[in-house]
Amino acid sequence: MFSDDPDQSLPHGGDLAAARRLFADAPEPFLDLSTGINPHSYPLQELPIDLFARLPGADPLAAAKAAAAQAYGAPSAAHVVAAPGTQILLPLVAALVRPGRAAVVAPTYGEHARAAALAGHDVIEIADLDAATAATLVIVTNPNNPDGRLFDKNALMMLAKRLESRGGLLVVDEAFMDVGPGDASLAGEVGRRAIVVLRSFGKFFGLAGIRLGFALAAPYLAARLAAQLGPWAVSGPALAIGVEALTDRAWMEQARCRLTEETTRLDEILADSGLEIVGGTPLFRLVRTAAALELFHHLGHAGILVRMFPAHPSWLRFGLPGADEDWNRLQIAMAAFANRH
Amino acid sequence: MFSDDPDQSLPHGGDLAAARRLFADAPEPFLDLSTGINPHSYPLQELPIDLFARLPGADPLAAAKAAAAQAYGAPSAAHVVAAPGTQILLPLVAALVRPGRAAVVAPTYGEHARAAALAGHDVIEIADLDAATAATLVIVTNPNNPDGRLFDKNALMMLAKRLESRGGLLVVDEAFMDVGPGDASLAGEVGRRAIVVLRSFGKFFGLAGIRLGFALAAPYLAARLAAQLGPWAVSGPALAIGVEALTDRAWMEQARCRLTEETTRLDEILADSGLEIVGGTPLFRLVRTAAALELFHHLGHAGILVRMFPAHPSWLRFGLPGADEDWNRLQIAMAAFANRH
Repeated sequence: MFSDDPDQSLPHGGDLAAARRLFADAPEPFLDLSTGINPHSYPLQELPIDLFARLPGADPLAAAKAAAAQAYGAPSAAHVVAAPGTQILLPLVAALVRPGRAAVVAPTYGEHARAAALAGHDVIEIADLDAATAATLVIVTNPNNPDGRLFDKNALMMLAKRLESRGGLLVVDEAFMDVGPGDASLAGEVGRRAIVVLRSFGKFFGLAGIRLGFALAAPYLAARLAAQLGPWAVSGPALAIGVEALTDRAWMEQARCRLTEETTRLDEILADSGLEIVGGTPLFRLVRTAAALELFHHLGHAGILVRMFPAHPSWLRFGLPGADEDWNRLQIAMAAFANRH
Repeated sequence: MFSDDPDQSLPHGGDLAAARRLFADAPEPFLDLSTGINPHSYPLQELPIDLFARLPGADPLAAAKAAAAQAYGAPSAAHVVAAPGTQILLPLVAALVRPGRAAVVAPTYGEHARAAALAGHDVIEIADLDAATAATLVIVTNPNNPDGRLFDKNALMMLAKRLESRGGLLVVDEAFMDVGPGDASLAGEVGRRAIVVLRSFGKFFGLAGIRLGFALAAPYLAARLAAQLGPWAVSGPALAIGVEALTDRAWMEQARCRLTEETTRLDEILADSGLEIVGGTPLFRLVRTAAALELFHHLGHAGILVRMFPAHPSWLRFGLPGADEDWNRLQIAMAAFANRH
C-alpha cells in the first residue's frame, strides 16, 4: 500500500525480542543499532515516589511546556503541546485538517502515512515538496529519516503559505532536528502559518522509554490537540525529567558535539568495510550495498541489530554504539564481513 | 453547558499547586484527599535504566495486556488495549461510534461529557439507564463517581443489546471496580456485545503518576483503539510496573481488605462530625452538608484538600488519608469544625 513504508514487514526498530527470536544463536547482550536513539542517556536523578503515585498536576505540565518552548525556539509555551511521545500525536495532528488529500514526502518514517490514513485522508507519497500541489495536508520529516535529507526553510514556508490559503496544514516532523542544523527548524515560525512542528524528546536525550514528545503550533491548534489528549497525558516522571533535561543547555551542547564525533567514528568503520554512506544525521547513518540482506544477517548472528527497509532492499541504517565494547563488537563484526567479500 | 460537570470551575482533583495558591497560609505538607487514589501505593522496585532509555518493545506490551486480561477478567489479551491512562482513551472510545446522540448517566466524572462532545456527539445527561432511548452512545460509570452508585449488570447488558441493534455502543467506566463488587463488572462480557469497559490502573494501585489504563472490548474494537494509540503509547516503566502489580494477587487481596477497613474508619470520623454520608466506594466517600463550602475552606486552611462540586454545592468528597499522622490531622480538623457548629 505504501511502497516506501519501512515498517511494512519487519518489526519496528528497537524490538530486541523479535531480533532474539530471529537470531536465537546470537551472543548476548544484543547490541541494538536499529534505532536513532542517543546511546548516552541524559543522566537520571533519583525520582521522588510522588511522581509515580500522584496525578501530575497542572504546574509540572506548564513547566515542561515552557522548557520545551525555550529549548526548541517556539514563540511561547502556549504554542506547545506535551504528549506521551510524538507517535500518539500523529493521527490527532492529521485530524486537524478535514479529510482530503494528504501527501507524505517519501521515503520516510512509515507511521506518517498510516496516521494520515487513520484520520481519513487519501494518502499519496511524493518525492519532493513541489509535488504537493493538490494536497491539503503535507507531511515532511526534516531532517528526514532514514536518509538525513534536509529541506529548505524558505521552501517549507512558501509551501505552508500555499497550504494555508486552501485551508490546509504543513506538518514538519523534526524528530532529529536536535542534532540537525538549528537554523533549519520551523519551531520559531509556527505562530505565523498553519504549521505543526513535531519534536521528539526521547531520541536526542536517549530516553525513548519515558514517552515524551511535543507538538509546536499556533495556540488555536495547540489547544485543539491538548483537548484531545486531556489533562494527564504525560506521566509525572516524564514531565520532571523533561523539565530538567530541556533546561540543561550544557548537557545539550556536549551531547551534540559528542554525537557528531561518534558519527565520524561510525563513518570510518562503515567506509573501511567498503560501504557507501548515502545519508544520515548525527544519530544514525544510512548505507547502500548490494549485500544489505547478507550483512543484516551477518550482524544479527553476531548479536548486532541494524535496520532493514523492505521497500529499499539495498539500504541499512546504523545507529550509534555506546560503550567501548559495543564499538569493538561492531568493528570486529564489520571487519569480518569485509574480509569475506 | 454540562450542569453536573464537577470540573466546571474548580481545578481537577489532585492539583495541590492550585490548592496552595488558594490556601497560602495552610501548614505543609498539604494532605490531598481530593482524589480517589489509594494512598498506599504498590511498592516500586528499582527500575532498570533500560526501561527509561529504550523504546518499550512489543513483548512488554503483550505481557501487560495479558496481565490485565487476567486481573480484570477479560476474555483474552486480544480484548485489551493498554493506554497512558484511561483519560486519553475517552475521545477515542467515543469516536468508535458515528457522531450522534450521546447520553452520559449523570452526575458523574465530567470528562465523559467533554470527550463525547469532542468526538462530535450531541451530549445529553440522563439520570438513569432507562432514559437512554435515543442515544447511540451511552456512557455510565460503575460504580459511579462521586456517589458510588452501582448499576445492575443485567440492565447494562440489556442496554448494550439495544444499543448494538442500532449500531451503538455502551461504555462502562469501571475506574473504581477494583474495590467494587467484582461480579458487577462487565469485563467478562466485552466479547459478547458492543461494550467498551475502561479500567484505571493508577487509582487502585496508588500509582496515578505513571499513566496506565486499559480499555476492554471485542478484538475488532480493541484493534481500532490500538491503531489510534500507535505502538509505543505506554512508557517502559509503566508497562513493567503494570505487569508486576496486576499479577500480584496477594497484594490486590490485601489492598481491598485494607481499603475497606480504612473507609470504615473514615466513615466514623465523618459521622462523628455530624455529616451525612450519601455514597462512595472503598476509595472515597461523598457527604452532603449545608456547610460544605465552609468545611472545604476550614479544611483548606488546615492544609487538607477535599473535593467540591460546583453543580452540587452541598457535596464534598473525601479520599483516604494514608499515614497515621494524616488520619490524626483529619480527625483533629474535623472535630474542630464540629465543635464550632
